[in-house]
Amino acid sequence: MINYKIVQEELGNIKQITEEEKIKKLSQDYYYFSPILSEKLADKTGDLVLQPTSEDEILHIAKICVKHQIPITIRGAGTGNYGQCIPLNGGIILDMTEMNKIQWIKSGIARVEAGVKMSILEREANKQGWELRMIPSTYKIATLGGFIGGGSGGIGSINYGQLRDRGNVHKVKVVTLEKEPRIIELIGDETQQINHAYGTNGIITEIEIPLAPAYNWSDFIVVFDDFMNAVKFGQVLSDSDGIIKKLVSIHAYPIPNYFLALKPYLPQGKSCAFLTIADNSFLPLQELVKEFRGEITYNPQDKQEKPLQLIEFTWNHTTFHARNIDPNLTYLQTFFWNLEQVEKMYKHFGDEVMIHLEFLRVGGKAIPAGLQLVKFTSEKRLNEIIKYHEDNGANIANPHTYILEDGGRKKVEPEQLKFKRMVDPFGLMNQGKMRAWNQ
Amino acid sequence: MINYKIVQEELGNIKQITEEEKIKKLSQDYYYFSPILSEKLADKTGDLVLQPTSEDEILHIAKICVKHQIPITIRGAGTGNYGQCIPLNGGIILDMTEMNKIQWIKSGIARVEAGVKMSILEREANKQGWELRMIPSTYKIATLGGFIGGGSGGIGSINYGQLRDRGNVHKVKVVTLEKEPRIIELIGDETQQINHAYGTNGIITEIEIPLAPAYNWSDFIVVFDDFMNAVKFGQVLSDSDGIIKKLVSIHAYPIPNYFLALKPYLPQGKSCAFLTIADNSFLPLQELVKEFRGEITYNPQDKQEKPLQLIEFTWNHTTFHARNIDPNLTYLQTFFWNLEQVEKMYKHFGDEVMIHLEFLRVGGKAIPAGLQLVKFTSEKRLNEIIKYHEDNGANIANPHTYILEDGGRKKVEPEQLKFKRMVDPFGLMNQGKMRAWNQ
Repeated sequence: MINYKIVQEELGNIKQITEEEKIKKLSQDYYYFSPILSEKLADKTGDLVLQPTSEDEILHIAKICVKHQIPITIRGAGTGNYGQCIPLNGGIILDMTEMNKIQWIKSGIARVEAGVKMSILEREANKQGWELRMIPSTYKIATLGGFIGGGSGGIGSINYGQLRDRGNVHKVKVVTLEKEPRIIELIGDETQQINHAYGTNGIITEIEIPLAPAYNWSDFIVVFDDFMNAVKFGQVLSDSDGIIKKLVSIHAYPIPNYFLALKPYLPQGKSCAFLTIADNSFLPLQELVKEFRGEITYNPQDKQEKPLQLIEFTWNHTTFHARNIDPNLTYLQTFFWNLEQVEKMYKHFGDEVMIHLEFLRVGGKAIPAGLQLVKFTSEKRLNEIIKYHEDNGANIANPHTYILEDGGRKKVEPEQLKFKRMVDPFGLMNQGKMRAWNQ
Repeated sequence: MINYKIVQEELGNIKQITEEEKIKKLSQDYYYFSPILSEKLADKTGDLVLQPTSEDEILHIAKICVKHQIPITIRGAGTGNYGQCIPLNGGIILDMTEMNKIQWIKSGIARVEAGVKMSILEREANKQGWELRMIPSTYKIATLGGFIGGGSGGIGSINYGQLRDRGNVHKVKVVTLEKEPRIIELIGDETQQINHAYGTNGIITEIEIPLAPAYNWSDFIVVFDDFMNAVKFGQVLSDSDGIIKKLVSIHAYPIPNYFLALKPYLPQGKSCAFLTIADNSFLPLQELVKEFRGEITYNPQDKQEKPLQLIEFTWNHTTFHARNIDPNLTYLQTFFWNLEQVEKMYKHFGDEVMIHLEFLRVGGKAIPAGLQLVKFTSEKRLNEIIKYHEDNGANIANPHTYILEDGGRKKVEPEQLKFKRMVDPFGLMNQGKMRAWNQ
């Protein structure tokens, strides 16, 4: 048994949260999008939340965790969906949101503390004509460290691929939980060791990332009578090297019915595309829409339109809005490798699996990644649905598991396991999430 | 017979060039890269060169051409390679280089007169943080109108595709040679009517193009023991969405021997890559080079290195430098659709066809386009080489013809022919270049 009274004393001036309700809240994420995870994780909570403000405090916390063998779970804003930051065995919750300094932005590179909100970093980068290469739909509150630890891509991935792609993360500073905790800097490819590792192998304290040049972006809504026509439009737009975009989000009818706030722009019965387009590409966009017999229903060039936060209806915000209407809905994450796979699933499942696509680049090629909405009936049926996708060549990154290797990559990268062996020899970090470690 | 004395009088104050030597020079381009064209075009020359400075002057010239039925051939800087601006039947040479005003640059779009030098437009765009999406290796003197009329892509095409790709040309103003010449504005897709049409169907006077955000670029030279390794490196770099580049130029040994000015950086026996990389992507570039066992021999980060104009050793400048050493060399233009095709040709032809690749995007996918150097023996053998490529699935854009439809596209776009019927009913423009018209 850990004596938290002693622990708390040893923590000195480090900010602690001890109220049970607050700890409970800071032990959660958006895992409840999954009925499977909901059941498994609802009662999980930490014992103590810490909010460090400096690397020194984090080093001190690391030492105390090692000394008392306290499990530790790192979190940013907790906007993940797989229980990435939910402690399975109690212990300390390390809330990184007070580690939020922007060290510098120069020559299209930013160096920041891991807990910086992406929206705040974006605002600072904008002042120099830069922006983040990719952001999640939760970017307003999500932290960069959380995104790298638990995310994979987002708005902008249609240009820059995913976080895992070489060049999208330059450097990462990590505090270890070795017998003598220390600070390590990972450079370039070495950062893969901690990328999307759920904070199982080191406390990310600082990050250096390359930025993207900032365009003047505008959001458009386009509607289509025929869903597959919308999908083809999305693929061609994604492949149109002369049209500058950063979001190509396609929603099969009846998904648009879940977007109550956008109702005026979403005629009944139509599938829709949500797009973010650079202002020097409006002209060719309009021609492409025409070619695919789409109709632009929201055009920010029209001065009478009020500005929309369209980003917040895409990626997993789509699931969020749909679940607000029908809590029985859940979702899948799918790599479709071509439009034929999309069409086959669309015809096969009908409204049981409503297709939502986010186009993104994988190895230089734009593909329609799926975040389909699923009418949940049972775990067995959900697994059947997953199997049918995989049997047809689509790859599912299962969002209904908190186990690292059961999710996107299907295996833990050997380098991540090796790195964990070095930096977390006592297995204190985010216990139970990396199966290879447990075995 | 045209009475040029009367014509010259009617031209009034429009700047005329009448010296035979100057006319001869302004009737030429870089057609002599091709021994086939050399033979056919060497003696071709216009009768009178005009250098208009305004749209009004061009309209006046158009009227006079129609009135006297004078053939007219438009030229920019004459940096083309297929005799695009060589008059087959004499007549007026319209030198557009005095039509060079930059009307405005705003919101990442530039509106300019057609004769503006691309280097000057680039410099002005840079002041606002923008640059041209793609430039030919001749950009220092080449005009934008010439590039659109006679070119297809260049440095930057690895990001934005080619000029023909939707969105890369927004608007074009054209003076017609109808019975009553007038000014037409083509918008969006309509600009395809005059794109790469060699000035056969309208005098381009003004152009509106979207720009690219300007990065801080640097040039690198990387060398490889094995050519196919260099090619694979080029493909992976082109497909690396997280590494920002604008030039991926690969040269099989012994091509590097032709680059005398770069000798210190090109070890004997090695193939090389010339790269232009954004300064926020140096780190991942170095890791990629290492993965492919390349060696960086020129790194601008090294303060001791003098700056190189590496761009001027790529695209058709490669051919230019090689021909300076061996005038017997000529070249091909090839769309390779995969690396297997490249390897097959490399092994089959050996040093008879030395492979030079420029990676560029076609429909969202990076491909290795070839500008191979060919040891010329006979037209028959050259055609055999072309046929062997095409039999193996590589598409040749034949640079040994001045006939529009025998070059890149293999047919004249019906819309280009239709547009010519409208704007040039007397067939005065760049006679003999569009076969469909002649028939």
